Amino acid sequence: MNSTSTLVKMILDRWSSALQSCDKLLNSLTDEQLNQATAPTKNNGIYILGHLIAVHDDMIRLLGFGEKVVPAYFDVFIKAPYSADATLPNAAELRLNWTKMNEVLSQKMNALSEANWLEAHTAVSAEDFAKEPHRNKLNIILTRTTHLTYHTGQLTLLNR
Amino acid sequence: MNSTSTLVKMILDRWSSALQSCDKLLNSLTDEQLNQATAPTKNNGIYILGHLIAVHDDMIRLLGFGEKVVPAYFDVFIKAPYSADATLPNAAELRLNWTKMNEVLSQKMNALSEANWLEAHTAVSAEDFAKEPHRNKLNIILTRTTHLTYHTGQLTLLNR
Repeated sequence: MNSTSTLVKMILDRWSSALQSCDKLLNSLTDEQLNQATAPTKNNGIYILGHLIAVHDDMIRLLGFGEKVVPAYFDVFIKAPYSADATLPNAAELRLNWTKMNEVLSQKMNALSEANWLEAHTAVSAEDFAKEPHRNKLNIILTRTTHLTYHTGQLTLLNR
Repeated sequence: MNSTSTLVKMILDRWSSALQSCDKLLNSLTDEQLNQATAPTKNNGIYILGHLIAVHDDMIRLLGFGEKVVPAYFDVFIKAPYSADATLPNAAELRLNWTKMNEVLSQKMNALSEANWLEAHTAVSAEDFAKEPHRNKLNIILTRTTHLTYHTGQLTLLNR
């Protein structure tokens, strides 16, 4: 295995592992726990789960994978900040879309070759990419992995 | 820039960026906020900050960088779980050691070449590393980056 293959594997493994940990945590949380605030005045579990789904859905766009799975979540869980007064989708709907999202992403991701991962993502111009080759598809995985662990750290506080 | 260099840069940049975000957050939190629990019954900010310092100190060992900066933190912040009754170092001491830790690590890390990053870390045998080349020094950076963002997500809840 050459060093590029090793590094690509490291980043993809880190994503899979972070996703698996979050999924395991979500399965351990009740709907009631998801409806609680992570900390006084802060986002509840429902909002964070919806936010993760919306951010992962946006990866479909950035990675050139086709149509989004739940485009309506963008406005609700990215554009709008959390409000305790807002009516949000319920836990059952979110759990379903979380699973669907993971399946779609995983299927599309598995179809990419190592060379594909090093190609530009869809939000960078060819001109910029020539100068900044780190703005590749794999960097989307890397930055969304740290985004995922950031919020997993918060969701784990609901386990009380 | 070849693909290996690009990928090494991506991972090192992600670490630096995560560290910078956490540092900025810590500077925005008062000592009083650090002494609060992130969520009911959960770790307070003091314990999380001490835990991050201890885990980063252990990177010195894993990366073969020499002597630890605050070896005593291992027992207090990794071996022992958080207890509201425990007497922990105060915020001033922790802030000082956090800064010192970042300086030492950053200095040692800057001295490594790309080839060095792809070498085995100190907790893997030569035999295992031959079969599992992803157990390199850079993977320590990658896994500690997601560890850092996980806890940064929790610390940010103290900002209330």
